[in-house]
Amino acid sequence: MEKRAMLYEGKAKQLFETTEPNILWVQYKDALTAFNGEKKEQAKGKGRLNNEISSLLFKQLSKAGISNHFVKRMSETEQLVKKTSIIPIEVVIRNVAAGSLARRLGLEEGIPLNTTIAEYYYKDDDLGDPLINEDHIKFLNLVSSNQLNEMKEIALRVNRHLTKYFKACDVELVDFKLEFGFDKEGELILSDEISPDTCRLWDVHTNEKLDKDVFREGIGQVDQAYETILTRLKGAVVND
Amino acid sequence: MEKRAMLYEGKAKQLFETTEPNILWVQYKDALTAFNGEKKEQAKGKGRLNNEISSLLFKQLSKAGISNHFVKRMSETEQLVKKTSIIPIEVVIRNVAAGSLARRLGLEEGIPLNTTIAEYYYKDDDLGDPLINEDHIKFLNLVSSNQLNEMKEIALRVNRHLTKYFKACDVELVDFKLEFGFDKEGELILSDEISPDTCRLWDVHTNEKLDKDVFREGIGQVDQAYETILTRLKGAVVND
Ligand SMILES: Nc1ncnc2c1ncn2[C@@H]1O[C@H](COP(=O)(O)OP(=O)(O)OP(=O)(O)O)[C@@H](O)[C@H]1O
Ligand SMILES: Nc1ncnc2c1ncn2[C@@H]1O[C@H](COP(=O)(O)OP(=O)(O)OP(=O)(O)O)[C@@H](O)[C@H]1O
Ligand SMILES: [Mg+2]
Ligand SMILES: [Mg+2]
Repeated sequence: MEKRAMLYEGKAKQLFETTEPNILWVQYKDALTAFNGEKKEQAKGKGRLNNEISSLLFKQLSKAGISNHFVKRMSETEQLVKKTSIIPIEVVIRNVAAGSLARRLGLEEGIPLNTTIAEYYYKDDDLGDPLINEDHIKFLNLVSSNQLNEMKEIALRVNRHLTKYFKACDVELVDFKLEFGFDKEGELILSDEISPDTCRLWDVHTNEKLDKDVFREGIGQVDQAYETILTRLKGAVVND
Repeated sequence: MEKRAMLYEGKAKQLFETTEPNILWVQYKDALTAFNGEKKEQAKGKGRLNNEISSLLFKQLSKAGISNHFVKRMSETEQLVKKTSIIPIEVVIRNVAAGSLARRLGLEEGIPLNTTIAEYYYKDDDLGDPLINEDHIKFLNLVSSNQLNEMKEIALRVNRHLTKYFKACDVELVDFKLEFGFDKEGELILSDEISPDTCRLWDVHTNEKLDKDVFREGIGQVDQAYETILTRLKGAVVND
């Protein structure tokens, strides 16, 4: 397997073609962006940490029977994934009020939600990734209603597994974002990344933030927070 | 039936108690507000026009078998309605792209939607009436999932009827907002008003706006636009 031409450069990752047509080579970057790209920073080690954390979590999800794009970690900052045609919907699952949900509904950050909330956002930077509903998705023809239900179901299953993994290392999974795509067989599979860039993760005892909010809110060292997550995940014996 | 103490003053209407505990006396005001109350104006005749238009449309919907709060028009600017406990959800139905939908999805205003879009907004001025989804509604405990489905179904039925009434007088029903409440028997019934304040209405031939956007965009005489709607509705022979 060899790395070929760069296909796409995102805010957090570069995607390269490989000698295998259905396999992509992903390079995790140290770049951090927030507020739709308005706030930018380099955080040394972030690429390595997210690559490792995402690899570890996708491997756990595979063991739990949740199909995903992860193939193999190639280096500190690189991994191979199955190429998918990404569905432009971000599925957000929330267990605790934070971020835009707290603002939208006027909730105090940190209150536990007595019911898990799923949200769909239209993955479109120019529009600022707006919240959308089932009817918008039908109109935009992004996925069928069955596929959307399947995405939501998988996301809720992922939530149950991740919540357990994180709880085992004293971390509360507040919320997270997933992306899905269709692989070459047309199968719906979990794609993109699962990392402190895409999850809100709080220390269960102190409520210390150990995720991208550290950068968004400028309240500490990003690399230290992410390193804490990686160390704890590695240390936790996850029996699934 | 007599008018008693004022119960509530909104931006467009005053509600009074009556000698009947389950009947409210509604006074339509000439006040116009937009952008969550930031833009304000008096439009002489607006109260009369909306009172007449809303009465006429609710009467038509009653004939079509859609339960609603309307009881009787009492004067040019007053009507009696059944008192309901208003559900704090605004149900918006859209047939053509306009307003916040056009902005949210980056659509050109005026493109017809190949699929009717329903949206729910949380009726909360402090929060700016945010878009919400089924899970938010469940979390906020606003209505049960069955009740929400019933609201959506009724709203879509209202859409079919109103579209027909307006088409019969050369007006396109672009979108509209409904409110629902529970009457004293606990029955879910359509409440509030249906008027050019709560609908987008365009002349089918010229696309001229004949609704509150005339005020929002400062593009003409509000009273003339609303008068056109009333005159046309009265003139159209609606066989339902
Ligand atoms: N298995 C996959 N196949 C194809 N593309 C993928 C796969 N997994 C993730 N991607 C896409 O890789 C791109 C780069 O990721 P990155 O996180 O850098 O993007 P982003 O800047 O956050 O978002 P975007 O560029 O989509 O606005 C994203 O568009 C993501 O959807
Ligand atoms: N049948 C009814 N029983 C009780 N209240 C009603 C009924 N129909 C409408 N209402 C309520 O009357 C109030 C006054 O109407 P108006 O249109 O002036 O309010 P608004 O300023 O637009 O909105 P709000 O005051 O709710 O923010 C609204 O809160 C509306 O929900
Ligand atoms: Mg990304
Ligand atoms: Mg109103």
